[in-house]
This record gives sequence, C-alpha cells and structure tokens, in this order.
Amino acid sequence: MATVLSVSGSPSAASRTNRLLRHLDRRLAAQGHEVIPLDVRTLPAEVLLGADFTHPAVVAATELFARADGVVVGTPVYKASYSGVLKALLDLLPQYALAGKTVLPLATGGTTAHVLAIDYALRPVLNSMGAAHIVQGWFTLDKDITVHENGTLTVAPPAAEALARVVDRFSTALTPAPALAAAS
Amino acid sequence: MATVLSVSGSPSAASRTNRLLRHLDRRLAAQGHEVIPLDVRTLPAEVLLGADFTHPAVVAATELFARADGVVVGTPVYKASYSGVLKALLDLLPQYALAGKTVLPLATGGTTAHVLAIDYALRPVLNSMGAAHIVQGWFTLDKDITVHENGTLTVAPPAAEALARVVDRFSTALTPAPALAAAS
Amino acid sequence: MATVLSVSGSPSAASRTNRLLRHLDRRLAAQGHEVIPLDVRTLPAEVLLGADFTHPAVVAATELFARADGVVVGTPVYKASYSGVLKALLDLLPQYALAGKTVLPLATGGTTAHVLAIDYALRPVLNSMGAAHIVQGWFTLDKDITVHENGTLTVAPPAAEALARVVDRFSTALTPAPALAAAS
Amino acid sequence: MATVLSVSGSPSAASRTNRLLRHLDRRLAAQGHEVIPLDVRTLPAEVLLGADFTHPAVVAATELFARADGVVVGTPVYKASYSGVLKALLDLLPQYALAGKTVLPLATGGTTAHVLAIDYALRPVLNSMGAAHIVQGWFTLDKDITVHENGTLTVAPPAAEALARVVDRFSTALTPAPALAAAS
Repeated sequence: MATVLSVSGSPSAASRTNRLLRHLDRRLAAQGHEVIPLDVRTLPAEVLLGADFTHPAVVAATELFARADGVVVGTPVYKASYSGVLKALLDLLPQYALAGKTVLPLATGGTTAHVLAIDYALRPVLNSMGAAHIVQGWFTLDKDITVHENGTLTVAPPAAEALARVVDRFSTALTPAPALAAAS
Repeated sequence: MATVLSVSGSPSAASRTNRLLRHLDRRLAAQGHEVIPLDVRTLPAEVLLGADFTHPAVVAATELFARADGVVVGTPVYKASYSGVLKALLDLLPQYALAGKTVLPLATGGTTAHVLAIDYALRPVLNSMGAAHIVQGWFTLDKDITVHENGTLTVAPPAAEALARVVDRFSTALTPAPALAAAS
Repeated sequence: MATVLSVSGSPSAASRTNRLLRHLDRRLAAQGHEVIPLDVRTLPAEVLLGADFTHPAVVAATELFARADGVVVGTPVYKASYSGVLKALLDLLPQYALAGKTVLPLATGGTTAHVLAIDYALRPVLNSMGAAHIVQGWFTLDKDITVHENGTLTVAPPAAEALARVVDRFSTALTPAPALAAAS
Repeated sequence: MATVLSVSGSPSAASRTNRLLRHLDRRLAAQGHEVIPLDVRTLPAEVLLGADFTHPAVVAATELFARADGVVVGTPVYKASYSGVLKALLDLLPQYALAGKTVLPLATGGTTAHVLAIDYALRPVLNSMGAAHIVQGWFTLDKDITVHENGTLTVAPPAAEALARVVDRFSTALTPAPALAAAS
C-alpha cells in the first residue's frame, strides 16, 4: 500500500489535534498503509525557528516527506489560520516538498466560524508546495473530541462519520490503480 | 507622538526583512514616534514554540503590543504566505492583541508572484486580532534591497518611494487629530 | 458630514442583504451622513455583464463611487465568497475606485461556517481597489434577520448590537477631525 | 474517455481567456475527450444576474455540469480575483455542482502580481462546491498570448509548455484506471 506521513502542527503536548491525528492513523494503518507520525513540537525548537536547512533534524524531516506517498496535515486554528509551529516546519522544507503527493488537510478549533481557514489559509500553502492532489479536508470542533483518562479518544458521531469519510477518500486517492502503477 | 512596535518575522539574522524594518524605523523615529524594534528570532525558541502563555518572555511581548499605538508587521514570504516564525509569535498573543491599533503590513520576497500574500494571507490574521486600521502595505522584492558592508541598506528608487509613501500614511493614520484625541 | 454610498450586492429583490443595508442606512443618515443606496440588481443586466466601461450606467455608477467619502459593501455569501453580481459591478469600476475612501464590509449568510469570507475573500478585493481604511465588518446570520409584513426589519439583539457598533465605528472613521480636515 | 466542460468566465467577446480555453480544448479533444465549450457571456444577462434557479438556461447549464467528468474553469483576473461574471454563473449552480469532478483552474492577467488569485480566490470557491480533485492550475500573462488575424492563437514558449503540462495532468487525472473504473 502507501506510505503516509501524519503531521500534527500543534505546539501543545496535550493537544486535541495531536490525539485526533494519532486516532486517525489507526484507521489508515488498518487499511494497510504504513503510517509515520510526526509531531512538530517534538522537533528541537531552535531548529524549527532557525533557518538552518542543513541541520540533521531538518534533513531527516525532509526525507520523511520525500518518502511519503501521502501526507496528513493537521493543525489547530489560531488567529483564523494554521499554527505558526506547523508553518515553521513547512518553511524548512524544499519549495516542492509535496510534489506528486496526495494531501489530507485537517483542522481543529473552538468555533465553526473558522471552518474556512482550511480552504483559504492552509490549502494555498500546501498548493504552493506542489501537492498533486489535496483531497477534501475536515474541520473538527474541539467540543466534539473527548479525551478519556486512558488517553483514548472519542469523536462525536456526526464528526466521526465525516472524518471516516475524508480519511477513506484520502486512502483511495493514495492507492494507484494497477494500470497506472504499472505505467508510472 | 505615537509608540510604534516594529516586528520583524524573519528567522534569519542576516535577513533583508529585519534590515528593511530597522531602516524604516529611522524614518518613523525622525517623524517623532517612539519606535520599539522586535525581532522574533531573538525570542527564546522554546518559548515561541511552546504554548506557555505565562512565560515571562511571552508576557513581556504581550506588554509591548499592549503599549503600542501602531505595529509594523514585516515578514519574508515563504511558501506563498507569512513566515511560521512570525505566526508563532502572533499565536502566543491574546486574541485581540491588535484591538484599537493601526497596523502596517510589509513583506519581502524573491518574486512578484507572491505580492498577494499580504492581502490574502497576512491581513486576515491581523484582522482576526482586532486591528482598528490596517493601512495599505507594501511588498519589496529582495533584489531591490542592497545591504552594504557597513550594514546600511539601500532600496532601489521606485520601491524606496513606495515604502516612504506607505510609512508616511501609516504615520499619519497613527496620529490622532487634536479633536479626536481630546474626545477619546 | 460625509457622503456614504451603500452598495447591496444581492441578485434577489427580496434579499435580506438589501433590506439589512437599507435598515442600516437609516442609522447613518440619523448621524448626519448623506446616504446614497445602490442595489446592484437595479443596474441593467447586460451592462453589468458586458465589458462596456463607457456605458452611461457604468459612468454613473463610477461617479457615485467617486463622490463618496465612505462605501458600505454588503453581500450575501454564496459558495464561500461574495456574490458574482457584486463582483460584476466592482469589475466595471476603475482599478482604484476606492482610493482615499473608508469602507465597511458586511455579509449575510446561512451558516457561521462562512464568517471568514469577509476577511479572506471580500477584503482582498476591496484592498486591491485602493481603499484607505476598511473598518471591521460583520457577518449576520440569515436567521437573525426578521422581515415583517410591512417591510420593516428586526435584527436579533446580539447581532443588532454588533451591527450598531460596526456602523458607528465606520461613521467615526468617516468623519475627519477638524485639524486633519483643515490640513487636507 | 471523459466529458469535459470548458467554462470561460470572461465578459468580453474578444477576450484572451475565451480564446485560450478554446485553444486548449483542441488539445483535450485530441486526447479523446468530449469537450463542451461554455462561454459565460453567451448566457442571457438577466438570467445570470437574476436568482431564478428554475430558468431553462440555468437548468441547462446545471445539466452540463452534472454530465461532465471534468471542468476547466478559466477566468481573467480583475481586482485581484476571478471575474464577477464567472462567479455569477457558479452562484446559480447547486452547492455541490462539482462533487466527484476533476477541475482545472486557469487564469489570465496583465501582471504576475496576481498569480496567487488562483490559489487564494478561485480554488476556495471551487472547493466549496465539492470538487473531488482540483489539479495544479496555471496563470498566463496576457502578453504571452498572441491572437492572429485569422483568430488562431499562439502562446509564448515557456507559458505554452506549462499549459500543455497542466492540461495533460488534468487529462490523466480525468481518466480512471481500468481497475478503478470497473470497481466504481
């Protein structure tokens, strides 16, 4: 199947965005994909904020993107847009780091008033990086995500179904049909 | 006159954005404003990327914004948008940190193809922070900025004139007329 | 006081956008401004969709903009953006038809999920037309607007207060203080 | 092969956008696709600007979209965004008129400063209409399009190559591989 890099752009360890992405990773893994989680906040801060493209951590992140067939990009919405932490990582990657890749944009936030941040703020950035196919994404309200004491997570039914649908479409878009795979 | 916070959102010490803002600061200071420079990259990286709103460096930055009548926000354009480093700072501020303030958005970049990043990417973020008045900004091409050996800077004539014009309009917008000042 | 052009960009005669703008016009008039209503759908359709900049109706609309100190721009949100009808009018105006003017952007729509259309879609267009000051706008939910049988309109309390606030700020921004007025 | 609707959103009969789309139609037809040209300005103006979703011309346009596997959407850039005329057509279509479809966004304009209008203005609208796959688009400078006396058109070499590339990728994205086609 495909290799999927699942990038969480939250600065907070206890973030709903992080937990939601790891929850969705399991669905992608169950569909046979190799899923590589990447939490931006685990990268060294001075690397993310420096402009040193030759640092081993930057080179390693760049290689993760290069290896991936698909990339899940998840972000909390702050100030009507994606997080600065996520963008700091993207800024360190080559201009066309998403060339040829299928991308699933996801966001979480406190108000439906920020739903359009995916289409007006995040997608243009992903597109400028050469993404081949940015599938329909999804904005999940914070209040629809419940984190249990054991660390597991429940998503309220309508949001859970919508997320399952966008993840499955992403999964389908990732999988080249035999004829195309043979031709490429 | 007014207090102006001049924020450079470049991750690079040798950045044209930083130098351009410091160059323009002198024009604002000559017009009688108190200008406070703030280079985002001088903040501790782990603070910028953490989500600790109570850290003294975050509190200090928040106070600088609170004190300012006007804010210059300068950013290099990366991946068709503002820098992640700049957004990481804005993410740490209160939602309405720009309420009541006059804002001058500036960007630098390698290609005119990125001119619209100011209006489509940066302004919506500044607006979500409650800015009272975001004046017309300017996008300066990297090639129009020459940094000399002694650290001074020359901007190519047409860009220099445009920058002088937007800085002067910002300066005028900053200065409440006597009647309004007395009434407020 | 000031001359305000109040432009409604709805294609529908029974539109909530139109009625809301005419309702707000009364508040502006009560504050002493001369308010000129302009409903885009009253312009001849073949003029709006043609590209004939010399047509008398286009020349007349251009003069209305030229005369105005301030412009209220109201639009329903369709397909996550402003209406095509509104944009068709703006397309016929000179590139800098809003130069030197104060602008109040307003939108109506069926879902809060479209709130950001003002900042990400409408404002960049108004800004490209040289607007001097685009004040904070407001998105009103259709369900908060009640049209009575006699044609009058009631806005639900929290939305009504927010609208009064943005209209009053626009009104203040329109009125040059004596010192500035004398100097200009 | 596939059915492609090729929509030109220019209000002008002599428009470069229109001619460019018809020029590219030939490439798509030569690849075996059925190409249906649609020039927005040929629709009755009062229909485009009215809000009558039951008018036969609106019903006919809606059916053209429904039949298409792929849609080329071309627009001149006016006021830093797509044309009002194009948006007026899109406003008349069902909310999800692009569901399941592959879309190629194209723009023409006088300055490279407007390149980002495709990603920041046009794509969010197309995305709100449920497009399954919006492939990488292209912005062609007016000066790179030469219209000859006999009505044929030449595109300057680098732009011509870029256009051929995006059209061919769109063509490939349109064509379901045998296995997927059988399964769907």
